[in-house]
Amino acid sequence: MTKEKCEKDSTCETCDQTSSCTQQEKEAHAQEERLKSKLSHIKHRIMVMSGKGGVGKSTVSTNLAVVLSQDGLNVGLLDADIHGPNIPKMLGIESQHVVGSATGMVPVEVFPNLKVISMAFFIGDRDNPVVWRGPIKHNAISQFLGEVEWENLDFLIVDLPPGTGDEPLSVAHLIKNVDGSIIVTTPQDVALLDSRKSVNFSRMLSIPVIGIVENMSGLECPHCHKEIPLFKTGGGEKAARDMKVPFLGRIPIDPEMVTDCDRGMPFVMAHPNSEATRAFKQIADLCKEYVGFKEIEKKLETEKSPYHFQKQEVKR
Amino acid sequence: MTKEKCEKDSTCETCDQTSSCTQQEKEAHAQEERLKSKLSHIKHRIMVMSGKGGVGKSTVSTNLAVVLSQDGLNVGLLDADIHGPNIPKMLGIESQHVVGSATGMVPVEVFPNLKVISMAFFIGDRDNPVVWRGPIKHNAISQFLGEVEWENLDFLIVDLPPGTGDEPLSVAHLIKNVDGSIIVTTPQDVALLDSRKSVNFSRMLSIPVIGIVENMSGLECPHCHKEIPLFKTGGGEKAARDMKVPFLGRIPIDPEMVTDCDRGMPFVMAHPNSEATRAFKQIADLCKEYVGFKEIEKKLETEKSPYHFQKQEVKR
Repeated sequence: MTKEKCEKDSTCETCDQTSSCTQQEKEAHAQEERLKSKLSHIKHRIMVMSGKGGVGKSTVSTNLAVVLSQDGLNVGLLDADIHGPNIPKMLGIESQHVVGSATGMVPVEVFPNLKVISMAFFIGDRDNPVVWRGPIKHNAISQFLGEVEWENLDFLIVDLPPGTGDEPLSVAHLIKNVDGSIIVTTPQDVALLDSRKSVNFSRMLSIPVIGIVENMSGLECPHCHKEIPLFKTGGGEKAARDMKVPFLGRIPIDPEMVTDCDRGMPFVMAHPNSEATRAFKQIADLCKEYVGFKEIEKKLETEKSPYHFQKQEVKR
Repeated sequence: MTKEKCEKDSTCETCDQTSSCTQQEKEAHAQEERLKSKLSHIKHRIMVMSGKGGVGKSTVSTNLAVVLSQDGLNVGLLDADIHGPNIPKMLGIESQHVVGSATGMVPVEVFPNLKVISMAFFIGDRDNPVVWRGPIKHNAISQFLGEVEWENLDFLIVDLPPGTGDEPLSVAHLIKNVDGSIIVTTPQDVALLDSRKSVNFSRMLSIPVIGIVENMSGLECPHCHKEIPLFKTGGGEKAARDMKVPFLGRIPIDPEMVTDCDRGMPFVMAHPNSEATRAFKQIADLCKEYVGFKEIEKKLETEKSPYHFQKQEVKR
């Protein structure tokens, strides 16, 4: 059968009307096909976002990925921060490189069931800035999604750069069916203001908000053990209530967390019994619960799920 | 005399070859002319940058601008963070609006000699995210520079969003002759890694680095007054030494700074005798010294200035 026009869903190599497609169209169709094929092996996709930088988004992404992998799940961690890719440093793998295979790029393995891809693996000199505008960044993220050999994953955690600009837009448009977003904030007002923007941004892109995480919430003096209200506390929970999204937990500031980040050791592994680790585990449990209910919902094809996340779900 | 082609330096309204310019060309030439005319009233232009978000870049920009204005200088503060414009909140002017004049937009006045422009003044609902890709952001920044009635300024402080992407590139290309950049970092390794990228980014754009500021440097427990090494200390100074750029000072963490930010009161005004205020004043003094020497250098047209910033100056 002869098609009138090269359709988006078919690669041009097999399309009957190959001759009528421009080279650019052919490449775009082939890339889309690769993306679709690679993403079909990933069960759940979660975006970790924040409106403001420096709230510990990468720390949350990294520790969440480690906790999920400790539970025996296959986890991929995509560091979508093109200008400041710090996840490899936090996991002590910054000197590693991505190798090529016949069908794509092989991500760097932290454990057999935790794999990472990051711009950091492609920069020769780590002091060199990546001076790219939006369209080139879009292409890089597209390659991270379409050409990386993730293999079968239970979870792909995407650590986005802060804000509501090119990178989050690119990821959302490329992945298409993101399961949900986690919004990280610190409790001070200026950060909360930006986290409310992230909730609305997520809703605009029809990505359900799994919930808000309040990071750097309260500090205990290591000497006198009294509470120091450095960035205040409780603001994240209030923002969650105001914006009608779930609150996933409060992670206290722990000076050890900074040290662990710098020496490339995930905090949840170095301090398995700490309050912060308990908070990370709770966030991971809520994520699993969230996607579990989403799967049941899908199976039952019912509109009236008893699930408490239902309220803020957006029709996609 | 008839010109062969509409030249970039002339607006098309007065150009002899008006008919040969496309509408788009005419607009671009007119915009360039406006930009040139507006920028000619600004003596010194300083970009405040950081490789990583959340290091307190906006806090440094705001307090630096306030200190310079307290010295009687005319200061403009441009909040170039399109997605997370927080400077108006930090100065308690977030409910204000920009008004139009016959020749442009009138920036919001904090004091008669301190004026601010920010995306925040143009967003109706402050929870609404600005979901813009690079080219639209470039246009917005171009308008902030070319259509704002700054009048005569001694200093224009441009607070950039973190990273090395669209916004810093746009500002550098539009302003053209930036006097220098101030790079803000916190002392932990992951932030320092990004600040080194910013130094190289600045050099790539031929913008001399005025120096590095180490923010959130050390915390004293307000109860027992012992030192808490939250983000460590000294890393900024080491990075400055490594990258051969001046070190401008160390700003300690002060829980009051978060509270002041949230209530819209510049820290240097609320705590004029604090250690952090002394650090901000020192940074302002070094900036004045820097541009002063640059002016002398220009006048003398000498290549061998005794000025200690000379070493890292890049030929433009």
